[in-house]
Amino acid sequence: MDRTVSCYDCGETYTAAERKRCDCGEPLWFDVDPDGFEWPDAGSVDDMWRYADALPVSDSAGIAPGGTPLFRANRLDDYAGCSLSLKNEGQSPTGSFKDRGSAVGIRGTIESGAEWVGTVSHGNMALSTSAYAASAGLECAVFVPADTPPERLELIARHDPHVFRVDGDYGRLYSDTLSLDVGVNFVNSDTPLRVAGQKTVAYEILEQLAPAVPDAISLPVSSGGQASAIWKALRDLARAGVIDEVPRLFLCQAAACDPIATADRNGDTEVTPVTPAETIAVSIANSEPPSGTHALTAARDTGGAVVSVSDEEIRDATDRIATRAGLSVEPSSAVAVAGVRQLCQRGALEASDDVVAILTGSGYKERYGTDVRSRTIGVDDIAGALTSVVDG
Amino acid sequence: MDRTVSCYDCGETYTAAERKRCDCGEPLWFDVDPDGFEWPDAGSVDDMWRYADALPVSDSAGIAPGGTPLFRANRLDDYAGCSLSLKNEGQSPTGSFKDRGSAVGIRGTIESGAEWVGTVSHGNMALSTSAYAASAGLECAVFVPADTPPERLELIARHDPHVFRVDGDYGRLYSDTLSLDVGVNFVNSDTPLRVAGQKTVAYEILEQLAPAVPDAISLPVSSGGQASAIWKALRDLARAGVIDEVPRLFLCQAAACDPIATADRNGDTEVTPVTPAETIAVSIANSEPPSGTHALTAARDTGGAVVSVSDEEIRDATDRIATRAGLSVEPSSAVAVAGVRQLCQRGALEASDDVVAILTGSGYKERYGTDVRSRTIGVDDIAGALTSVVDG
Ligand SMILES: [Zn+2]
Ligand SMILES: [Zn+2]
Repeated sequence: MDRTVSCYDCGETYTAAERKRCDCGEPLWFDVDPDGFEWPDAGSVDDMWRYADALPVSDSAGIAPGGTPLFRANRLDDYAGCSLSLKNEGQSPTGSFKDRGSAVGIRGTIESGAEWVGTVSHGNMALSTSAYAASAGLECAVFVPADTPPERLELIARHDPHVFRVDGDYGRLYSDTLSLDVGVNFVNSDTPLRVAGQKTVAYEILEQLAPAVPDAISLPVSSGGQASAIWKALRDLARAGVIDEVPRLFLCQAAACDPIATADRNGDTEVTPVTPAETIAVSIANSEPPSGTHALTAARDTGGAVVSVSDEEIRDATDRIATRAGLSVEPSSAVAVAGVRQLCQRGALEASDDVVAILTGSGYKERYGTDVRSRTIGVDDIAGALTSVVDG
Repeated sequence: MDRTVSCYDCGETYTAAERKRCDCGEPLWFDVDPDGFEWPDAGSVDDMWRYADALPVSDSAGIAPGGTPLFRANRLDDYAGCSLSLKNEGQSPTGSFKDRGSAVGIRGTIESGAEWVGTVSHGNMALSTSAYAASAGLECAVFVPADTPPERLELIARHDPHVFRVDGDYGRLYSDTLSLDVGVNFVNSDTPLRVAGQKTVAYEILEQLAPAVPDAISLPVSSGGQASAIWKALRDLARAGVIDEVPRLFLCQAAACDPIATADRNGDTEVTPVTPAETIAVSIANSEPPSGTHALTAARDTGGAVVSVSDEEIRDATDRIATRAGLSVEPSSAVAVAGVRQLCQRGALEASDDVVAILTGSGYKERYGTDVRSRTIGVDDIAGALTSVVDG
């Protein structure tokens, strides 16, 4: 790869294949031809390799992420307060949006000649990276916090990575692994290869809706890697003249752990760590987001904002998505819809706005204590029992 | 719907919109124009409504199943013993192949004017039917065995159906519900609307591979509804001249509960109930399959067979799919790959055969005791710990 990476903040450019941080400390983006993007000619949105020309790696075989459905969720419009569409990343091979970045990360690792890939994650990203490494025959090392619940580790372990449970400062672990020189390419949540792959969800949304362009895109934010990827994709599309205007980006956090929203609220230009409390949105509880400042910049630059929602709002949105759109999502995904509702209620979004909420992950990997409304009957009682609820 | 349904066995045809059984006792198929099928002109395989012309209902809004990936699983060829492709139905909105039939079942229910849909299932089908009913605003009644584990009910309950836990003969419950007249349309696993929807997986496989036609298709079999749907689709494609030859259908069961394989082995023309033992393949443990004889006929008619695999073979296949193809599937899905391996080992399939195995469901809804290989380290020890495994 004779590609370049550059810094959104200070503008510095590097030729290093996968240098992961700018000297200024901010994350780096792979550069793309500023005028080069156009929609692929043929076919429709099947998988993300459709956009291989805009990616820093070549096409890949095996499981391919992307091509997730985007659809109008009319039955949620009243709840959301606008015209809502859902992009369901939960239908990715490992059930989350992380697959896009994992696919590019694994492919880039192979092209670099390394035989090992690593990642620092306590959930979806560890699972996704392990799965794509397995599908490509790479060895994989996963670093999780020592207190990661066994039921989550069990899913990751199916793909047989080397799992390290780490005691100590998880934020430090994230940054320490980026400079390790032991033959393992770390594809963490905001490293350039992963961010390049994550861009493809924005390409898909815009191509699936084309020629319409949504007024806003809402998504959960944790490390900030996904937000910066989407911002990058939208800027490139605008620069290439594929879209006229960049949709506003609304980034949503759980109030219990909302460093980026806090910075936005306070008018700060940099995101600083917060002391986290417990939240049902476990996948996005990142108190020290490595691309936090990058994500904050993305929200502001597009005329969007960073939103905090309570666990009560998150539970309610999770429930509505299941009972009115038929999708089981993890609470960390429902945050994107809870955020839209709050924004509409306070007038930051309007009823006429076309808003796409990204559902980042499937709800099937965890249980969160749903009440089961059931009654036990005998096989001879089915007609009577059914009649009583149908007529009642 | 002024459609007709007919019996594969005695040939009787009925005009009833959703009559569910022939007078002879066998299940019914919706009839399609015998010469009418052609591949849709435009686009690629996005979702199953692409094949709306071959379905007994009109297009639908909201969540749309289908468009699942089909890909060569080269890294499993050695294990399987042939040229293996995987069709991953686990990427459906509710994580299983059942979504295709649920979508058509719900749509047909709405078109019939009913406001309630029901189903008899202890797992994927109950979840899927509940989800699609929720997405369409229909009331839903789900009948599960009284001993269904709470962790499975919790997933179903997210979509807020009415759940009835039934004590007593589950096979009788299945057939009793088909003739209930209480304003609830039962979309059970081999009812005509569901079977019509399930056909679309075969259309997709053949269109995704076109102009090639696979030598064989392998799938798990439980009630027999999916097997009969695929057989129907293949016959229609062949009759319309879209394909020259019908792929052989291999249906796979867990040895602990294999009434259809038993009948095939014994040369019987009818499937009779067996006494089930415990198996890891819980989703397909159907000791009294309502379309068992239909499925047996499908396997024989296409030159295929019904295969029994042990729980050890199922566990091994589940594991290989995760570690070599990067997919977490439920053991009941891995049965399709375990079956291919056994068929290749005993010479019923050859190394040069192109075989498609259908992975019917995601592995994320259950835990099955995967060993977690992990070690606990301090944050200062990451370089050393990693070096020891990379170099070791
Ligand atoms: Zn910089
Ligand atoms: Zn008949």
